Amino acid sequence: MPNYNSMDKEALKEEYKKLSEQYAAYKAQGLSLNMARGKPGSEQLDISNDLLTVLDKDSDFKTDDCPDVRNYGGLCGIDEARQLFADLLGVEKKNVFVGGNSSLNMMFDTMACLCEKGCEGQTPWGKLPKVKWLCPAPGYDRHFGVTEYFGFELITVPMTNEGPDMDKVEELVKDPSVKGIWCVPKYSNPQGITYSDETVRRFAALKPAAPDFKIFWDNAYIVHDISDTPDSLLNIFDEVKKTGNEDMVFEFCSTSKITFPGAGVAALATSEKNLELLKQRYNFQTIGYDKINMLRHVKYFGNLQGLLDHMQKHKAVLQPRFDMVTDMLSENLTECGAASWTKPNGGYFVSVDVTDGCAKRVVALCKEAGVVLTGAGATYPYGKDPKDSNIRVAPTYPPTEELKTAMEVFCVCVKLAAVEKLMK
Amino acid sequence: MPNYNSMDKEALKEEYKKLSEQYAAYKAQGLSLNMARGKPGSEQLDISNDLLTVLDKDSDFKTDDCPDVRNYGGLCGIDEARQLFADLLGVEKKNVFVGGNSSLNMMFDTMACLCEKGCEGQTPWGKLPKVKWLCPAPGYDRHFGVTEYFGFELITVPMTNEGPDMDKVEELVKDPSVKGIWCVPKYSNPQGITYSDETVRRFAALKPAAPDFKIFWDNAYIVHDISDTPDSLLNIFDEVKKTGNEDMVFEFCSTSKITFPGAGVAALATSEKNLELLKQRYNFQTIGYDKINMLRHVKYFGNLQGLLDHMQKHKAVLQPRFDMVTDMLSENLTECGAASWTKPNGGYFVSVDVTDGCAKRVVALCKEAGVVLTGAGATYPYGKDPKDSNIRVAPTYPPTEELKTAMEVFCVCVKLAAVEKLMK
Repeated sequence: MPNYNSMDKEALKEEYKKLSEQYAAYKAQGLSLNMARGKPGSEQLDISNDLLTVLDKDSDFKTDDCPDVRNYGGLCGIDEARQLFADLLGVEKKNVFVGGNSSLNMMFDTMACLCEKGCEGQTPWGKLPKVKWLCPAPGYDRHFGVTEYFGFELITVPMTNEGPDMDKVEELVKDPSVKGIWCVPKYSNPQGITYSDETVRRFAALKPAAPDFKIFWDNAYIVHDISDTPDSLLNIFDEVKKTGNEDMVFEFCSTSKITFPGAGVAALATSEKNLELLKQRYNFQTIGYDKINMLRHVKYFGNLQGLLDHMQKHKAVLQPRFDMVTDMLSENLTECGAASWTKPNGGYFVSVDVTDGCAKRVVALCKEAGVVLTGAGATYPYGKDPKDSNIRVAPTYPPTEELKTAMEVFCVCVKLAAVEKLMK
Repeated sequence: MPNYNSMDKEALKEEYKKLSEQYAAYKAQGLSLNMARGKPGSEQLDISNDLLTVLDKDSDFKTDDCPDVRNYGGLCGIDEARQLFADLLGVEKKNVFVGGNSSLNMMFDTMACLCEKGCEGQTPWGKLPKVKWLCPAPGYDRHFGVTEYFGFELITVPMTNEGPDMDKVEELVKDPSVKGIWCVPKYSNPQGITYSDETVRRFAALKPAAPDFKIFWDNAYIVHDISDTPDSLLNIFDEVKKTGNEDMVFEFCSTSKITFPGAGVAALATSEKNLELLKQRYNFQTIGYDKINMLRHVKYFGNLQGLLDHMQKHKAVLQPRFDMVTDMLSENLTECGAASWTKPNGGYFVSVDVTDGCAKRVVALCKEAGVVLTGAGATYPYGKDPKDSNIRVAPTYPPTEELKTAMEVFCVCVKLAAVEKLMK
């Protein structure tokens, strides 16, 4: 099959007819498949089932700094959990705050804190007429949502193969109303790009006009490899120490996609000064987070190596699924040229760029045929993809057989939309 | 022993000498006892240990509205948990949001939402030059802290035996900058007072000048009886239906003092309109709260009756402790007139009013003798008790023998401070 762009009108008509028939056949099956969200599948959830019973009535509920995890107290989390996350993030325990069940919630609360009280002696962001926030895109819709909720103006920064376009970032931070940036530095959502060493170093060396500029470093996929050649990410805390920018970074992570989404443990790491700022808010907000669940996780993993071993089980489930998805994309879409995509070494998504102006159409076609995708545009600020081309495919949730069918439908829809456009 | 007020100088001197000797004897013991916070004791924590293993790998993780509680989703909580809290609070499931591990956090988040976005078409509170908030006192220090964090002006409303002084409340709400009130309507913290039917009805019938006036109804001790003659509280939601004030109330509760503090489940109930408002924020803040812990609680209790039966076990532990405390107060302090106190039918505290101007001194004397009490003044806005007389005694945490010693020390300190004052 030749590239669609080199086809004449007749050939396109022929291809359209063929694709329409394939599409109609899928539609007739009355499918109900979902590749919309980065949710682990059942098989992955089962991996962590022993976590449920790792604590029982005979357990020792005393920890290094806490007489009984079943009782109130311990704002920053139990010592053992702080140490586990410190080891995971490559920082010191004193820089870690272990919170509730959601890193998104911690990002939201951190943003709220900066809006309410401010930092570095600057006006709280909530009291400023205008706050701008940098959003590398394609990116994570829920990140953009948080900053949109707080009324910030979202500024799109293009992604490159090495992370956000740092020339653009360095230029944009000269504006003192630019207060921060969202980053998913490893296996970025949705492209699976890991920031290069140079990108991390340039972040650490930023000299923003705003003294209270903050990097929200969401290391959501820190240990979420799906290939035998995993990426590695430079530790930004090591770098900011060299540049004196220790107070510029808040790093977030959680066990949501390590144990149970929504029933895991979230943590953040930042400078002691920033932690003091956050604690001033947390101290009013709560007496403390779920320490029993922290102890469950600590006992279940034992240590960082235990956690890394555990992640190999996820990899074993996910690697063949991602391979299938990228193989199917290659087989179906390489020659016709209707799309390009990433082949990530980790993370939860495959990012597909379909023919410009066709993403919405592809998502609509898929939906009509019973295959739900992330809404087109969701990976851009305000849900508006300027080229209408990016689609985030999430291969983790559906059972393998369903995923295969969903991908077949997807590929037909990508081709159909491309041909439709060329015929116009 | 006669009343101190009727003693002459010589008799006081004699009494002072006696008390000083007793005090010195306790001090020499090098005690380390704590009656500061409303924390359950170990015996109470053990009651709920079976909760830890109620779910295991063979459990059914599917619920009425959720395909798998181990995965993402379900912003308002699982249906079964919403129903349990609906039954507990006497409202409909549609009015309930089940959240994380802390009702304090839900109150804080609700307050933040009203500060950020406002309601009833009014200016968000965070954008107003002045917000006033009513604080029945003595009350809960962490409540006052939340409103202080958000920069509100706290206005003290005196407590009566039937709840807050409603004449004062009705007068104060005529000021449109008064936006709400803290209430612990059942077994109030610290006095253990349950609002009378008339008080609840007057709350429901309030006609505040501020259209966005809100009652934060913290029903923290809703099923926390410690006597054979428990109090009963009128259901405020039934009452506001009659007065058309459905949107005026946010009710909060949690299982913190039912199962495990910090590892329980919190919930709020409010009008559907208010719930929509909160959901607009929660939808950005989180994907959802810990549904595994919700299911744990649902399975553990079975239903409301199971929860009520469970509370009888707490009562069995707490009733003798509270009886001991109030008996010791009676025996030691009735005749000398150095204090008055409440004998609550439930809750977590005994509120003691010592001689005016002596609360700080009593707390300091106790501390010096190794007995930690809640800071004097903590039960008042800004930590300032105008009469310096109220002390919150928390009898739940220390083992019974330690509690007895701590109370002996406390009684000696109350008397010593009273005599000191009379000798001045």
